[in-house]
Amino acid sequence: MNCPFCRLNSKNQAFATSPNFMAVYDISPMLPGHTLIIPFEHIESLHDLEEDKLAEFFQFARKVTKGLCDFLDTDAFDWSIQEKEEAGQSVSHLHLHIIPRTKNDLPSASDWYPLLMEHNRQTVIDSAQRPRFSETEFKEITEKLREKFKSLKNV
Amino acid sequence: MNCPFCRLNSKNQAFATSPNFMAVYDISPMLPGHTLIIPFEHIESLHDLEEDKLAEFFQFARKVTKGLCDFLDTDAFDWSIQEKEEAGQSVSHLHLHIIPRTKNDLPSASDWYPLLMEHNRQTVIDSAQRPRFSETEFKEITEKLREKFKSLKNV
Repeated sequence: MNCPFCRLNSKNQAFATSPNFMAVYDISPMLPGHTLIIPFEHIESLHDLEEDKLAEFFQFARKVTKGLCDFLDTDAFDWSIQEKEEAGQSVSHLHLHIIPRTKNDLPSASDWYPLLMEHNRQTVIDSAQRPRFSETEFKEITEKLREKFKSLKNV
Repeated sequence: MNCPFCRLNSKNQAFATSPNFMAVYDISPMLPGHTLIIPFEHIESLHDLEEDKLAEFFQFARKVTKGLCDFLDTDAFDWSIQEKEEAGQSVSHLHLHIIPRTKNDLPSASDWYPLLMEHNRQTVIDSAQRPRFSETEFKEITEKLREKFKSLKNV
């Protein structure tokens, strides 16, 4: 399977799960807390989720968002879904970006989106332009988040 | 009530509804099809929606997205929620932006987000910088969309 998000699943890199979705810390976060909510199954389009799974997707995402924001002592966040390349999607496996925000984290509140696009390119071309966690760093933060989110195991 | 989104409701400006949500065409769309999904009730935070209403919010949003994309002959779209001012939210009444996308609609797929921020400022300050529909134009497009979405009446 050539899909990087399917590989995340097979490598057990989630820090929280629901029956059909995983929360994975971004390997190259734009801002602290940047997390992806991804279906285990290789689903490309939001339209391909059954109704009950659509509800589960956003209920789980909201719980994860609450936990991340509590962790970062904020109540502000951006959610973004990009569907198809014309909309900026780079990995053809459905995912929601959760980006916790704090006051003055970027020069302007709008600056996160160009960063997200840069980030998407990076995911695809694996560029050295952007800092990425080492495997050890990624494991460490995932372990910390698992501890924080231990109640979010197959919720 | 000083909330512009509560006024939209009282002025009956939706083109489609579910029991608790309305779809309203943006008065100053960034791109063709730009639509907001808004709870009738003055709810500020995504966290304040009950679980079943959270499911309804996104199920309704997905149906509206499908209709808008069909209308525009595309399958690409962006979804965005901004929660709190630090995240770019300007009107403190929960809303999801649906932005249908088509190939080369903007110089770069990422260019919609700065436009959204510009648009948010405009909503607040009612600037003359950005083209807005006249009341007549808005009614016309809303009528067209109501016809298109007549099956989405309290779905």
